Amino acid sequence: MIPVEEALTTVLDVSRRLSPVTVAVEDALGKVLAEDIRAPDPLPPYPASIKDGYAVIAADGPGEYPVITESRAGNDGLGVTVTPGTVAYVTTGGPIPDGADAVVQVEDTELVQTVASQPKRVRVLVKTNTGVDIRPVGCDISKDDLVLKAEELLGAAEIGLLATVGVLTVKVYPTPTIAVLSTGDELVEPTCKSLNRGQIRDSNRAMIVAAATQHKCKIVDLGIARDDEDEISAVLDKALAADIDILLTSGGVSMGDRDFVKPYFQNRGRVYFDKVTMKPGKPLTFAEIVTQSGEKVKKVLAFGLPGNPVSCLVCFNLFVVPSVRNLSGWKNPHLPRVHAYIKHSIKTDPARKEFHRAIIKWENDAGLGFPGFVAESTGHQMSSRLLSMKSANALLELPQSGREIPYGTSVSAILISDIVGIALGNDLLSSKPDI
Amino acid sequence: MIPVEEALTTVLDVSRRLSPVTVAVEDALGKVLAEDIRAPDPLPPYPASIKDGYAVIAADGPGEYPVITESRAGNDGLGVTVTPGTVAYVTTGGPIPDGADAVVQVEDTELVQTVASQPKRVRVLVKTNTGVDIRPVGCDISKDDLVLKAEELLGAAEIGLLATVGVLTVKVYPTPTIAVLSTGDELVEPTCKSLNRGQIRDSNRAMIVAAATQHKCKIVDLGIARDDEDEISAVLDKALAADIDILLTSGGVSMGDRDFVKPYFQNRGRVYFDKVTMKPGKPLTFAEIVTQSGEKVKKVLAFGLPGNPVSCLVCFNLFVVPSVRNLSGWKNPHLPRVHAYIKHSIKTDPARKEFHRAIIKWENDAGLGFPGFVAESTGHQMSSRLLSMKSANALLELPQSGREIPYGTSVSAILISDIVGIALGNDLLSSKPDI
Ligand SMILES: [Mg+2]
Ligand SMILES: [Mg+2]
Repeated sequence: MIPVEEALTTVLDVSRRLSPVTVAVEDALGKVLAEDIRAPDPLPPYPASIKDGYAVIAADGPGEYPVITESRAGNDGLGVTVTPGTVAYVTTGGPIPDGADAVVQVEDTELVQTVASQPKRVRVLVKTNTGVDIRPVGCDISKDDLVLKAEELLGAAEIGLLATVGVLTVKVYPTPTIAVLSTGDELVEPTCKSLNRGQIRDSNRAMIVAAATQHKCKIVDLGIARDDEDEISAVLDKALAADIDILLTSGGVSMGDRDFVKPYFQNRGRVYFDKVTMKPGKPLTFAEIVTQSGEKVKKVLAFGLPGNPVSCLVCFNLFVVPSVRNLSGWKNPHLPRVHAYIKHSIKTDPARKEFHRAIIKWENDAGLGFPGFVAESTGHQMSSRLLSMKSANALLELPQSGREIPYGTSVSAILISDIVGIALGNDLLSSKPDI
Repeated sequence: MIPVEEALTTVLDVSRRLSPVTVAVEDALGKVLAEDIRAPDPLPPYPASIKDGYAVIAADGPGEYPVITESRAGNDGLGVTVTPGTVAYVTTGGPIPDGADAVVQVEDTELVQTVASQPKRVRVLVKTNTGVDIRPVGCDISKDDLVLKAEELLGAAEIGLLATVGVLTVKVYPTPTIAVLSTGDELVEPTCKSLNRGQIRDSNRAMIVAAATQHKCKIVDLGIARDDEDEISAVLDKALAADIDILLTSGGVSMGDRDFVKPYFQNRGRVYFDKVTMKPGKPLTFAEIVTQSGEKVKKVLAFGLPGNPVSCLVCFNLFVVPSVRNLSGWKNPHLPRVHAYIKHSIKTDPARKEFHRAIIKWENDAGLGFPGFVAESTGHQMSSRLLSMKSANALLELPQSGREIPYGTSVSAILISDIVGIALGNDLLSSKPDI
């Protein structure tokens, strides 16, 4: 039995980054970059207008001027020079013709009535200054700038940056392939309409497949194995021979005479721990199994998750998610942690650290007159009761003391899902207008 | 020009739920349930053991007993009754044979050496009480219990609950199909290696496609349209004739003489607003376009996003994401909002509410001696500078005042991406052991 912090440190030590692969930018979303990306050209590559309006010589000042060219994009206005006493029409993002040194927005001008055969004339109504409403070359990105560094997580903005610099394929860390097995003589497929005595439907596999999908893993579904040593060995041997990075089993890690998962891990690899001082999740077992097919040696991380659905999902969040992130190249594999004020007293376990399922949300007055998170338990916390995970977005980390934590105490909360939204018009939460 | 709160209220009013569809449970992850789900049978369906050990009659107390059956699952132990003076072997999750009223875990027993021909005998070392380590029938879920309610978001736990109750297909709200178009004569595909004068690569489309993918939308990529009225009309007419729910354009909504997106929206539908008092994002245009093909009438929400990449992505987060959530059936479409203490002073805009890109993280002492979020700006906030969105996980909502907000002020922060993780072993953040 080891403490949860030590167990997680062990898992993270063993969970090494996968080898980078090169993928099309379309497939890079949500992955971690494995190379530096530099800009091949400056942005903007030409002096660009910030407004729709007229490129002018600032020193000319207000007055009526002929519009000598219209420069919107491409070669518009190329070879034409704005000389004192003339202006050029420009649009947002379009190039500034040579000679001009400022832009006057269209709202600060008036078009003068002219005959069709004559060049357009415009009245500039305001005085401006050199450089106003012009983005000089490289103002956003200089040529050869480091636009993205290795180890950055690629979200929408980062994908946009890759497009900006013309990168079409990138080196990223792949996300792991996870094989998922449920074990237990009592389990039947969710397709089973009417249960016989001693049968329950397998919920862990669908749940863990969903959770691994949320974390962008590829899935190999191994089905259900009976509590039979040969059957378990056969299915796990086959899974390990395929190209998987993580093996997740549920059940078969307790004290029963037919719990064959732990013995299998012991036979095939190195078991790092097989009990953790946590509630739920005590029987969690973690091993590394080295497989060899021909020349190729591969390390597979094997998690023997407890059979109780809540224990199974809590262990997935606390241990498998950080492991997946390490394999996927994340710089920081940890789940977010905050503090939350509990809305009711909670009795703690005397012997094990408890991860109490809760819904946390931000309140303007969390109880002490200033804003913060408040936490509400999802109810009865029995580890078989999956309803206690429903809608939970946090695990409250409660120390083992056996004492009751009183209402209003600030406790550590591990975020496992999204925080509740708050309307933009909510005045309480808007920044005060006097700041 | 309307305030940002009013603009969002308008968008949400027009954004109605899509009609529910029935999907396989495997495809329901991340979607909102459109029906109530009840349990067809209780869980557990039989009295189940919580431990590996022996089912006993509690009143018997410590002593040596014959093991009359082994009940692990299925029909094990069926027809056998535990009578006073006998016990039955049981495993975690397995059925309790008739007659027994408690379980003694294997750790609190000793197997007695017996000859192979004789029944096994076990020494029970502890006294127990009726009901201990037994989950009675329906203890987790009663028959006909409402397991999931319509409007619940289906995460991993909820998928597990669906498997538990044997549901294979569910009614959910579909996620919208979004068509994405970039407009502008200056734009070239990201594949362009060397830019000619007046050209930049189109980053908005790849970025918005990525963002919409993160929000589980189906995507129709409309490419780039020139600033040409006929070309824009043709591509948008074609898009509207296809089965889309949301149309996103970028560019073409400024004051330029070739900004044809807004006129198109005005011709084809109802424009609700075409300017918002926000920075960045002022030219944001929103319209509803009703299309008819044969009998079928369809409402398409059209967002004319600004061409500057930062404005484009900020508007996507603030307006399109809540709209997508409304269409997808979310009960609460809003982004999470918290308060954060700014780590440096920030000058505000005198005329428009600013959404300042920042990275927020949780600190044990946010500056006033208690824990909270602190916010750090991502730097120069020019709306063309996509680097300011890189790694940003929050938009600080700064009121228009033109004044400087001093260091340490608490401001409203809208979360647009994940919060930074903190190691479990971080002592500062662990709950204090004395609570
Ligand atoms: Mg079992
Ligand atoms: Mg344009």
